[in-house]
Amino acid sequence: MKKIGVGLVGSGFMGRSHAHAFRAAAGVFDLPAAPVLELLADVNDEVAAKAAKGLGFARSTGDWKKLVADPAVDLVDITTPNTLHKPIALAALAAGKPVYCEKPLAPNAGEAKEMVDAAEKAGVVTAVGFNYLKNPMVALAQEIVASGEIGDVVSFRGIHAEDYMTDPSGPFTWRLDEKGGHGVVADLGSHIISIARYVVGPIASLVGQIKTVTGERPVAPGASEKRKVFVDDEARALVNFANGATGSLEASWVKAGRKMQLAFEVTGSKGSIFLDHERFNELDLYVTGQAKGREGFKKILAGPDHRHFREFVPAPGHQLGFNDIKTIEVRALIDALTGGAKFLPDFREAWGIQRVVDAIVDSAREKRWVELK
Amino acid sequence: MKKIGVGLVGSGFMGRSHAHAFRAAAGVFDLPAAPVLELLADVNDEVAAKAAKGLGFARSTGDWKKLVADPAVDLVDITTPNTLHKPIALAALAAGKPVYCEKPLAPNAGEAKEMVDAAEKAGVVTAVGFNYLKNPMVALAQEIVASGEIGDVVSFRGIHAEDYMTDPSGPFTWRLDEKGGHGVVADLGSHIISIARYVVGPIASLVGQIKTVTGERPVAPGASEKRKVFVDDEARALVNFANGATGSLEASWVKAGRKMQLAFEVTGSKGSIFLDHERFNELDLYVTGQAKGREGFKKILAGPDHRHFREFVPAPGHQLGFNDIKTIEVRALIDALTGGAKFLPDFREAWGIQRVVDAIVDSAREKRWVELK
Amino acid sequence: MKKIGVGLVGSGFMGRSHAHAFRAAAGVFDLPAAPVLELLADVNDEVAAKAAKGLGFARSTGDWKKLVADPAVDLVDITTPNTLHKPIALAALAAGKPVYCEKPLAPNAGEAKEMVDAAEKAGVVTAVGFNYLKNPMVALAQEIVASGEIGDVVSFRGIHAEDYMTDPSGPFTWRLDEKGGHGVVADLGSHIISIARYVVGPIASLVGQIKTVTGERPVAPGASEKRKVFVDDEARALVNFANGATGSLEASWVKAGRKMQLAFEVTGSKGSIFLDHERFNELDLYVTGQAKGREGFKKILAGPDHRHFREFVPAPGHQLGFNDIKTIEVRALIDALTGGAKFLPDFREAWGIQRVVDAIVDSAREKRWVELK
Amino acid sequence: MKKIGVGLVGSGFMGRSHAHAFRAAAGVFDLPAAPVLELLADVNDEVAAKAAKGLGFARSTGDWKKLVADPAVDLVDITTPNTLHKPIALAALAAGKPVYCEKPLAPNAGEAKEMVDAAEKAGVVTAVGFNYLKNPMVALAQEIVASGEIGDVVSFRGIHAEDYMTDPSGPFTWRLDEKGGHGVVADLGSHIISIARYVVGPIASLVGQIKTVTGERPVAPGASEKRKVFVDDEARALVNFANGATGSLEASWVKAGRKMQLAFEVTGSKGSIFLDHERFNELDLYVTGQAKGREGFKKILAGPDHRHFREFVPAPGHQLGFNDIKTIEVRALIDALTGGAKFLPDFREAWGIQRVVDAIVDSAREKRWVELK
Repeated sequence: MKKIGVGLVGSGFMGRSHAHAFRAAAGVFDLPAAPVLELLADVNDEVAAKAAKGLGFARSTGDWKKLVADPAVDLVDITTPNTLHKPIALAALAAGKPVYCEKPLAPNAGEAKEMVDAAEKAGVVTAVGFNYLKNPMVALAQEIVASGEIGDVVSFRGIHAEDYMTDPSGPFTWRLDEKGGHGVVADLGSHIISIARYVVGPIASLVGQIKTVTGERPVAPGASEKRKVFVDDEARALVNFANGATGSLEASWVKAGRKMQLAFEVTGSKGSIFLDHERFNELDLYVTGQAKGREGFKKILAGPDHRHFREFVPAPGHQLGFNDIKTIEVRALIDALTGGAKFLPDFREAWGIQRVVDAIVDSAREKRWVELK
Repeated sequence: MKKIGVGLVGSGFMGRSHAHAFRAAAGVFDLPAAPVLELLADVNDEVAAKAAKGLGFARSTGDWKKLVADPAVDLVDITTPNTLHKPIALAALAAGKPVYCEKPLAPNAGEAKEMVDAAEKAGVVTAVGFNYLKNPMVALAQEIVASGEIGDVVSFRGIHAEDYMTDPSGPFTWRLDEKGGHGVVADLGSHIISIARYVVGPIASLVGQIKTVTGERPVAPGASEKRKVFVDDEARALVNFANGATGSLEASWVKAGRKMQLAFEVTGSKGSIFLDHERFNELDLYVTGQAKGREGFKKILAGPDHRHFREFVPAPGHQLGFNDIKTIEVRALIDALTGGAKFLPDFREAWGIQRVVDAIVDSAREKRWVELK
Repeated sequence: MKKIGVGLVGSGFMGRSHAHAFRAAAGVFDLPAAPVLELLADVNDEVAAKAAKGLGFARSTGDWKKLVADPAVDLVDITTPNTLHKPIALAALAAGKPVYCEKPLAPNAGEAKEMVDAAEKAGVVTAVGFNYLKNPMVALAQEIVASGEIGDVVSFRGIHAEDYMTDPSGPFTWRLDEKGGHGVVADLGSHIISIARYVVGPIASLVGQIKTVTGERPVAPGASEKRKVFVDDEARALVNFANGATGSLEASWVKAGRKMQLAFEVTGSKGSIFLDHERFNELDLYVTGQAKGREGFKKILAGPDHRHFREFVPAPGHQLGFNDIKTIEVRALIDALTGGAKFLPDFREAWGIQRVVDAIVDSAREKRWVELK
Repeated sequence: MKKIGVGLVGSGFMGRSHAHAFRAAAGVFDLPAAPVLELLADVNDEVAAKAAKGLGFARSTGDWKKLVADPAVDLVDITTPNTLHKPIALAALAAGKPVYCEKPLAPNAGEAKEMVDAAEKAGVVTAVGFNYLKNPMVALAQEIVASGEIGDVVSFRGIHAEDYMTDPSGPFTWRLDEKGGHGVVADLGSHIISIARYVVGPIASLVGQIKTVTGERPVAPGASEKRKVFVDDEARALVNFANGATGSLEASWVKAGRKMQLAFEVTGSKGSIFLDHERFNELDLYVTGQAKGREGFKKILAGPDHRHFREFVPAPGHQLGFNDIKTIEVRALIDALTGGAKFLPDFREAWGIQRVVDAIVDSAREKRWVELK
């Protein structure tokens, strides 16, 4: 079987998750090619060596440029902080190598567009890790909408709320550094935007609102010195989709008590869908025209009739976990790398998502509606 | 015991509900005065006579002016279509009589303001039927926020969605007549606005979006002739509260499957509250600072420790119904009429709510943020 | 319209609830006869007079025998402690008067049977207040089962659990007095038994288990003197229904955190029903044969297409409360008193329920299966 | 690092799951030894070779005896149909090799006891795959109970219900073959028994009920020939735990609509726990003594403060899946194999579980309470 040498840059939360997914995919799926954990790059040789051992990579390097140039690396996988996405991706694309990059693609749409152009010039596979799109129940939502089961889309309400920034005494972190791009609207907002586009379609215009809730934070845990925060802790938008549907988007990392409220409701002319990722193995479906006195939302539990579920567990109700979703993402990537269906979201789609992120911020700052051509 | 002669104008859904509430209040509460179902007015003598018999009123009339003038009528209770609210209320106020009026108070803020002025000149009790504010669990939400249990309010997400206009072949009704005011933003939106103001406070600025989903409807059930619809089927707004909190509001009567989704989440700096009126005897509460590994939203079931519950049932978990909430409203009104605590929302507060309704529509039409001074 | 003079004995939780229901029924329903709150009896003249005033009765007496004999009393309504049910009911029946009695009918099946015999000899209407059978969603469950929508009944799991006896320092009360009959198996267990019989049918045999969790309690709040408890705090049974279905029953008043967990699941050969009275306006329904990948339990919210709902509120999702259910019970009673459908559960059915209660206790004490002929 | 050569017998649902778990454990955890997928045995060489390739094993064989004897196999892992568990395990133990066996251990307690004796004579590690005990939220339940957070255990209600045998036209399968042991009481009942023993403790006596709902089934899909079913489709028991708590157990594979209702409620003198595996990343916790008007069950979402969660995902609310639980099981096994904490449930504990299964069936057949010494 063909092998795909994986070169991973970064070994944090997402680096571990990618490594795990490549390993798991080989066991779960009947893959057309075998991913090999070939080379891991991190900030220096020591860190890289240790991470490579822990994550099961054959070799390691403290220099991502070497990784990009390594002949055994067939796929460059980027899980670094956001600011490094562009240089690494551009180098990989220049070397004609496919790129798998964590979201958000870039700090802003301009830089994302440079990456799209490079990718399309290189003509290789690109993939961006908006993993929740690979949740079988999100795929089911897309399928229900696309098939017309709930009629035409009337409206969409989307939220991604968590609470890891709730405590105002929590220290300043790289997520808050305005050089890396926007705040929660990019970090979590991009997920719900990716779902909105996947399930409903492109957004034509919007008006946004952003808010920095905690204006300054300790420079380190417990430090008395403070650093000013410029990025948003909450963000919202009213949107008009290109297909005529309306809706709202919301992102927050200070929503006390919400741990993974990536939730959306799609209202159609003939029914509705609701899904919340705190219970991501469930989808609520309502259709009009039910018998009198028997109308209700149906709670569908994920099972082997839903996309890719069966390969994990053959029995319904047994549930997939977060890492399984990432494994499905890797499976789709390997398909694309071996001539199968195009991977989405690719760089172009990720740029489209980033344009919405930027538009929310621009709109909020300028206090006006903005069009997205 | 002092008696309060009730003169009811209108005998539809809300008329019946008021009659029931006056009757029930006398049994449930130890009232300071006894409401007497004195006189009912409707569109003509026959309809009024029949309704009076059904609802237990002593007398009836086809002329609301006679009701206003009747010496046995101490309280004028208005449950007519919206366009009649103003003339009847002004007549009652001119006669120096207290007024209990269904929501929304008027088709627009200008007319509402005339009613406020008349009321304040008359110096009598006024009451507007935003009944959900009387739900003990909404009162609990207000109490939790006001006491600081969840810290300072960071944001508010409020929705009132139902689905009674989902079917595009459903006929044109008075709710759709633009002469009566706006569409769902007034009919349901005013409820969620009333809660936002009650729990969080006044709104300082907003940007709105409205949408007519079904552009024309049969003039009657099954008719081939159509009438154009000008009012909104869905409405949304992003808001800034005067106290610095941000948030969103949404109203829809085409949300397939939602029967009474009057739901809101209040996020504070130290916790959150969630409540949905499809389960209005429950409030979810999260507070920060819980023990590690034991953090979670708590589901509080309505019980005798919550406002007015005990007078209905002495045992927790036994649930109040929609009519019980209206009965609490009547109890508060009778208190106010006998020198007790001021009734809220009165005409002035209802005008405040109407101003937000109007601002959403204005903002949506003009595609810009609007300030509410 | 015909009047029905109501004579109420007792004015506690259930006395209040009955008075409220008679009053409310007149407003909610188009009744064939008008209930009149004629006479209230309680332990002495003073208590009775005060209660009569509070609950809106015309007259009062400290002697229930006078109430039974009073010519204006057409219906004797018994809400006293259980031990008084029999003497009052027998006196009323001897006087040829219909009887409305709270559950459980008697401390044991033997005494219940005496009451049945007297009732059937008198040939008058009898009614026992197993109010949850009047919940429109319980009626819907019965209707779904009876119609075969979920096939043949395979099994039933029924629970009535609350937590008002959880605290072991809570004092001894009349509910714990073994002279009044059994413990929770009678107090709450009779409710779930009434539902099992209503929805599935009679029980043919069972094996029971009872447990006194707190063996002695203070004689009064805070008292150091203790009194031994002989009745059950928890009870369970495995049952065989006459129609071949199997199942289990459970009752507890020490189920910490459960406030009104009167819950049951009916499994049929072609579907299932679930209902929990902590959310009694909802019924979950599953049917086999749904489309692949779209199978799920449907959550049906109570609405105007369900029995009697419309007369309270014309809109779905607006919810009924505990008192509304009691009002439906009174409506059914007035129907029966005026020649309408037979009221169920009558004394005979209540005796059937009591026989199951007794059988659980007997079986538990003798540690063996018992047959119910 | 030390290596552990895994010899897997069987490659069905559980075989795949084990292979996946060994592979995943190496990536997720920092293991003290490296599992190597050494040898796979199945019914014949061809099947084994194909499965080995699919699951990533180095070698394969059509003869499990060769696997047991293979010097590179350090651990014999049994995922065959139940009837083969004993011969393979005894052979492995005779060879002094540790055994990892799927549940239920044996068709009956007698055979299980033979296996226990052989294991204890061999003195090697044994492990039985009652995987749900490894769910971090089940571990949390055990921890909460053991720590006294909810006081003394008063009662336990446990259910394992699914619906894969609901359709009476579904064919006869090996699960229905009485030679393999009992029906659902063994297949699913053993899971809820394992939890009851883990969380509450041993069962001292019980009375059981079993029922064959579908008495005969097609010998193959669509066949007109039928085969009689002797094993149970539903089973229930009332139980007394050795520590004085009471409770009930239930198992069904014909519970229409229930896909993974492995649910239990533990009631303590000072609180309660509820968990349902259709949402196995959640645990509901109630404790007495909460502030007035603020009492409620708290919904705790699985997160990094719960056992082993952090190694999968560092963020709360992101959820584990069924395969992750199996991965935790493998991790515990590797710990035990390298001198770490004893693995539970071992053969002895599995025998204890099997004795409860047998007791339910014996009790049901003989219609009497049985003691478990």
